Amino acid sequence: MGTVVALAGQVGGAKLADGLYRLRGRDLAVIVNTGDDYQHLGLDFSPDLDTMLYMLAGIASPAAGWEPENETRAAQGMLKKLGGPDRPPLGDKSLATALLRTQGLADERRLTEITLDFCRALGVQARVLPMSDDPVRTQVITDDGAVSYHEYFTEMGCGPAARSLQYNGAADARISDEVLEALHASDLEAIVICPANPFHVIRPILEVGGMRQLLKERGVPIVAITPIVGGKALKGSAGKMMSELGREPSARGAASEYLRLIDGFMIDRQDFALVESVRSLGIQVAVAQTVMRSPDERVALARAVLDFARSIREKKAAEVE
Amino acid sequence: MGTVVALAGQVGGAKLADGLYRLRGRDLAVIVNTGDDYQHLGLDFSPDLDTMLYMLAGIASPAAGWEPENETRAAQGMLKKLGGPDRPPLGDKSLATALLRTQGLADERRLTEITLDFCRALGVQARVLPMSDDPVRTQVITDDGAVSYHEYFTEMGCGPAARSLQYNGAADARISDEVLEALHASDLEAIVICPANPFHVIRPILEVGGMRQLLKERGVPIVAITPIVGGKALKGSAGKMMSELGREPSARGAASEYLRLIDGFMIDRQDFALVESVRSLGIQVAVAQTVMRSPDERVALARAVLDFARSIREKKAAEVE
Repeated sequence: MGTVVALAGQVGGAKLADGLYRLRGRDLAVIVNTGDDYQHLGLDFSPDLDTMLYMLAGIASPAAGWEPENETRAAQGMLKKLGGPDRPPLGDKSLATALLRTQGLADERRLTEITLDFCRALGVQARVLPMSDDPVRTQVITDDGAVSYHEYFTEMGCGPAARSLQYNGAADARISDEVLEALHASDLEAIVICPANPFHVIRPILEVGGMRQLLKERGVPIVAITPIVGGKALKGSAGKMMSELGREPSARGAASEYLRLIDGFMIDRQDFALVESVRSLGIQVAVAQTVMRSPDERVALARAVLDFARSIREKKAAEVE
Repeated sequence: MGTVVALAGQVGGAKLADGLYRLRGRDLAVIVNTGDDYQHLGLDFSPDLDTMLYMLAGIASPAAGWEPENETRAAQGMLKKLGGPDRPPLGDKSLATALLRTQGLADERRLTEITLDFCRALGVQARVLPMSDDPVRTQVITDDGAVSYHEYFTEMGCGPAARSLQYNGAADARISDEVLEALHASDLEAIVICPANPFHVIRPILEVGGMRQLLKERGVPIVAITPIVGGKALKGSAGKMMSELGREPSARGAASEYLRLIDGFMIDRQDFALVESVRSLGIQVAVAQTVMRSPDERVALARAVLDFARSIREKKAAEVE
């Protein structure tokens, strides 16, 4: 068995990454979206990195996967009492993560180093890697102008229609040595695009200067898992955003976002009827239960994904012969 | 009734300030020591300011007066889990106060403005005023060199002998307009030096450039309350520090620290035998129960202090006639 690289963000992405981690341990590297990072109260928050860390460390809240279990809000209550902001919601443990990250950055340590230190401290053997050490800020363009995704989500509740998105800083962001090393591993067997909003989770990763090219030229199977099941996203704004952006809010629409990049696309068994339609895009299709309601289901999906990648690799090898 | 200015720090000082506040409300201004302020995790902590705020707002922990009631330590636990520092102790609510202060300072607001905003938000009508908006850092000189008071207290448990103290930045620190205004109030009737360690709480205030002169020339009675009862400090390091510094660890020794500044010194009734000895220093002496075990006892002591100041004022007036 070789190594696996996953591209991820959000809770759904972290769940599949956790399934892969339970199968592969230290042979997994996860490249995580940082386009939704934001500053609040002078602190640096990296929601997708933290979601991933908590999930892989086994300390994510079962109810709210983006924060640690048994999260409390004492600091938030005090902030309000002192006349400070009471939004966005701020957990005490989440605050500690942001505090240490902010201090690390102030000490001129790279986000990647800080995140790998967190991995070590939490006993996470996989490498959780920011997509870049340089800041990328995803903005949603609405009829009233551009807002950060963070503001769009927490302040506007994803209300205004998204007309387009932009990824400020992505083109100039450098791929870190750690990401390069993971992608250049001689025993790399698959690149997995986890189920997550294509526009503000996966696309920012792909927009980092040279990333798309690097992935394509690597020559290992790239498989993506649908974030849309039965015409809607399980959670989050993917379906709504796809409609607003003029995309078909379906597994086929999601697959279309990754054309000319992926070799295979995995759809949910609920969408079995879409197999031919997705295949007609010129990519291989697999069907599985993509909804993960338990750690066992994360592992089952991860196994299906790796099997799918292997079948693609074997088919490629057969074609070459 | 006129206005009152108190000089204070630590829990004992805050207790007497609370007694004065219960009697005088908005007619009280408290000048608070900031020489023990410190940075931790990139945040600005002002322990004496916060102790005062929580006490006057009625939200101080009864058991640990320097922090808010029902304090929790979730962030601290997470910091440790993430490989961060687990000292000094860090409460979630206390963290919120430091966060807002740090953000205010980063926004180039003055510490005084930030603190008065906290007063308003907490419904505290008295003015809690930092001794200066400029940083002053008290250091304890030990046989092994100079350490910040914060480090001496939290890291060394006040273990090493104090050979002397220095107040870095004090001479160049400016008295704020708010402190000037409080001290220049035409109806100022007394200046009260609250019971607290003379060396690292009261002395830093007096060392702020021009402060001692300003207090002396103001012409209203200055009364100090003993921090030492029966030969020892109720809490804290005052007694030990006095011995190490070659002072007599007694109410008389404490009074000696304020010679050529105060008009009157109040000792505890346990130390009644010391009345003549303190009086021989050339200051007036009053006796009261200085130990405050309840809000009522804070008010009783505050009343005794203001009565003492009035008697001094009347005596002065009689001498002039």
